[in-house]
Amino acid sequence: MAEAISKFDQDLPRREANHVALSPISFLQRSAAIYPESTAVIHGRHYSYREFAERCRRLASALRKRGLGQGDTVAVMAPNVPALLEAHYGVPMFGGVLNALNIRLDPATIAFILQHGEAKALIVDREFSPVIQAALADLDRKPLVIDYDDAMTEAQGGTRGPLIGELEYEALLAEGDPDFAWQPPADEWQALALNYTSGTTGDPKGVVYHHRGAFLNAVGNAMVLGIDRRAAYLWTLPMFHCNGWTYTWAVTAMSGTHVCLRKVDPALIYPLIEEAGVTHLCGAPIVLNLLAHSPADVRRPLPRRVRVGTGGAAPPSAVISRLEQQGFEVLHLYGLTECYGPSTLCAWQDDWSNLPLEERAVKMARQGVAYPTLQEASVRDPETLEAVPADGETVGELMLRGNTLMKGYLKNPEATRKAFAGGWFRTGDLGVVHPDGYVEIKDRSKDIIISGGENISSLEVEEVLYRHPKVMEAAVVARPDPKWGESPCAFVTLQQGEEATAEEILAWCRDHLARFKLPKTVVFGALPKTSTGKIQKFVLREQAKEQK
Amino acid sequence: MAEAISKFDQDLPRREANHVALSPISFLQRSAAIYPESTAVIHGRHYSYREFAERCRRLASALRKRGLGQGDTVAVMAPNVPALLEAHYGVPMFGGVLNALNIRLDPATIAFILQHGEAKALIVDREFSPVIQAALADLDRKPLVIDYDDAMTEAQGGTRGPLIGELEYEALLAEGDPDFAWQPPADEWQALALNYTSGTTGDPKGVVYHHRGAFLNAVGNAMVLGIDRRAAYLWTLPMFHCNGWTYTWAVTAMSGTHVCLRKVDPALIYPLIEEAGVTHLCGAPIVLNLLAHSPADVRRPLPRRVRVGTGGAAPPSAVISRLEQQGFEVLHLYGLTECYGPSTLCAWQDDWSNLPLEERAVKMARQGVAYPTLQEASVRDPETLEAVPADGETVGELMLRGNTLMKGYLKNPEATRKAFAGGWFRTGDLGVVHPDGYVEIKDRSKDIIISGGENISSLEVEEVLYRHPKVMEAAVVARPDPKWGESPCAFVTLQQGEEATAEEILAWCRDHLARFKLPKTVVFGALPKTSTGKIQKFVLREQAKEQK
Repeated sequence: MAEAISKFDQDLPRREANHVALSPISFLQRSAAIYPESTAVIHGRHYSYREFAERCRRLASALRKRGLGQGDTVAVMAPNVPALLEAHYGVPMFGGVLNALNIRLDPATIAFILQHGEAKALIVDREFSPVIQAALADLDRKPLVIDYDDAMTEAQGGTRGPLIGELEYEALLAEGDPDFAWQPPADEWQALALNYTSGTTGDPKGVVYHHRGAFLNAVGNAMVLGIDRRAAYLWTLPMFHCNGWTYTWAVTAMSGTHVCLRKVDPALIYPLIEEAGVTHLCGAPIVLNLLAHSPADVRRPLPRRVRVGTGGAAPPSAVISRLEQQGFEVLHLYGLTECYGPSTLCAWQDDWSNLPLEERAVKMARQGVAYPTLQEASVRDPETLEAVPADGETVGELMLRGNTLMKGYLKNPEATRKAFAGGWFRTGDLGVVHPDGYVEIKDRSKDIIISGGENISSLEVEEVLYRHPKVMEAAVVARPDPKWGESPCAFVTLQQGEEATAEEILAWCRDHLARFKLPKTVVFGALPKTSTGKIQKFVLREQAKEQK
Repeated sequence: MAEAISKFDQDLPRREANHVALSPISFLQRSAAIYPESTAVIHGRHYSYREFAERCRRLASALRKRGLGQGDTVAVMAPNVPALLEAHYGVPMFGGVLNALNIRLDPATIAFILQHGEAKALIVDREFSPVIQAALADLDRKPLVIDYDDAMTEAQGGTRGPLIGELEYEALLAEGDPDFAWQPPADEWQALALNYTSGTTGDPKGVVYHHRGAFLNAVGNAMVLGIDRRAAYLWTLPMFHCNGWTYTWAVTAMSGTHVCLRKVDPALIYPLIEEAGVTHLCGAPIVLNLLAHSPADVRRPLPRRVRVGTGGAAPPSAVISRLEQQGFEVLHLYGLTECYGPSTLCAWQDDWSNLPLEERAVKMARQGVAYPTLQEASVRDPETLEAVPADGETVGELMLRGNTLMKGYLKNPEATRKAFAGGWFRTGDLGVVHPDGYVEIKDRSKDIIISGGENISSLEVEEVLYRHPKVMEAAVVARPDPKWGESPCAFVTLQQGEEATAEEILAWCRDHLARFKLPKTVVFGALPKTSTGKIQKFVLREQAKEQK
């Protein structure tokens, strides 16, 4: 017998009037309608919300006129300039999918991405025309190439390469209709953006974002970082990185101001904080490091409190301390490309205010708790899927579930299946849950060091190294060890002008670490990094093998 | 030929891990996990988030044990007490639908609602046991009746009637499991709440809310009124009114504090603002009026700025002015039961700060612009559905579209069809769009006065009357007029201790209104109100006919 329909479902279907696809594009429409004269974007000059929205509609219209349509990919190779921000609206406004390219990639990888993502158009900031030219040489089918010639290039430390496109970006906009009537997507599950992960091995994977997830993560970001209409958000985080962790949409949702920036340089950042009224910025620890260690002659006193969201790795206590002294307020976020950037935050607890810095930094370094817009962040046994006890000790894999997770990997059903196996998104990060419910990541599954049967968290050893007054950056990896199986090998970059011996560093470690966790070797020098600024541990593991 | 599946949809369906039903219930789970010891509810004593969540889970579990299940209605007849707030979580936690009853209703109407909504259980605050007893006498099938015996009854101006239920609320909770494992609904379109409109004629209509809409409107409310973790929200707005405009869920979303209150009485409100750290409250204009005209001996200076959201009618300038002098900050919201309470806000524009009070009040009295979580608020020709020009003059019907609109009316497909005809929710309110894009409602379609072929907005005449220093409340309705067809008839309540003649009031109107808009008659006395505090114009229209 068929189940009777509940009275609450009888004649009460979704309708055109009461069910609309969630889309972050709607934020721009609203802000432009309510605050047309407010500043939406600052980049040399000010762009009002009216102008910003018009430029986005022109972009959508012009690309549509040039034959692009529903589900077509538009790639952008640019630093944090207005054209890239506009593409976050203009591309989905005609049903397209934005593929923001990592500007640090090599031509071969770019060629792979353009081919795999089937980009129909490609907007290129002139600074990157040489690398794009090289990438395009490898492609069978060339996209429509559009040059972006940024007047702020030199002022923000860039250079201009040759013009390589069919036309210039402003000329393209001139072809478009400023009143282009865009519609929300027919389905909020529709693709919005395509972001390739900078995998350490193998081909990059194309992470597909949907409108629903971007809308919700943007709202979550506004709630978590306290973005409001008075906010001015400085773009120190690459917009190509998870669409700027969805702040490209979150700032617009609250009718705040985007402050563009081509290059993360303290000599540019401090004046902008002052002149553009910056209230918020985000960045990987490398950005925080740059601010913490900025030369005295470029640093300026902050005219107001500036909130800093950081993620990618826990902020070391030394960095937190230096930034707080300058007037920054640091919030630790955690996420991956697959979850639209941040999905958890280390939510502040009132009683932390009374803790000494070191203890506070230990609390703040944890990945914390789920965003209000994520359903669940949970540490579980990767085999049984059982949640680990909140004892701060039992290690499991951090898993996520909710509406702010990718549709999956483009043209890669096997990787998608694996990522979502068992009804959870597997982050590949190993962590514990503390008695207060806060998650702390101990390591990537592949970065854990197993020495004499004991697990050593490379992060724990690194945190100790970071606290050494002469150390600027540190990374610890496993080295094959005939006796112990593996042993920790430390790579250290000293602060400018500092000198230290390996014995000096090891003595510090002995004071702060259990004996079995001590690095057997300390190597000094610059650390190899991925294009998104992540330390490449697989390179260090190779180097470690060669150390005595 | 079938359309090819886009590469962005190939093998990328919704999955358990990346698609979860949006539900406001998740807010409680999260706040209780992150801030278990923070104060969730104040009512005489403090309830922590841990305790609040446990009580909600117990309620869900106990009702489930007593045989209630998916899609069953639970009615509550109570003022703003913890039991009603708990029912906002405990009822949907087991799949039930909450029907919060208007406590001002008569037994016959309550009997109709209980019958129509098929309530399986009914929680009754003792103050209302007599009226419920009378209502139950008419019912064929009696629900499970649970008494709520509030320790704060007398302290907040209430009285206790007889115990009429099978058991007391706390005894019911004791039957429940504090660890009850609730699940989000299988579908976010599932019914969450049932709210009967207090129609002025005909049977009340049962407005069905879904989880998706409540989640989104709660988020919108938090964004619009600036609710955050430090917020303490005083319950001066009835929770039975659109589920407290969804602030029942919004405050929990931001881990703020609910401050319960049985009765809107300045003698209770001012001490609570001080002692409970109140930062926000909402209410119909009648609540603002009470605060504006509160006796000097109960009024206390506000220890901090308190944001006040008001809706139901525009706040008159005199009331805005009095409240601002006390330290309240008034925000005008607009909505209906059908759209989860507020859907538009009169968003503040910076240049208003420099306007004289009267001009500012005129700006602020407008219904304004769409919530960030509503798709569109639009004034359109009710026949052609064409949008009116933004000229501040052309009148059309305010129509809404988005995700924060009801599923429809329960067991009333005809009314549902009419409400959503043409792909828009028809508010029945007539208004204009100003050149700045702000909507202003001129009148309910049935409240407009047509005199000599000219439309007279009763609201405009009322605004002038409200500004008279001796007037506390005013309402203007159409009276049949042999010469003009209709003419305005004014009903006025004077402030306590004031006296005035009709001529004095009319002279004031002549100074401030066009001649054809002048009331022909002024009647003094108390105004008849609906159970939600709305002035009953249909009663006044009858009385107007009898006036000379």
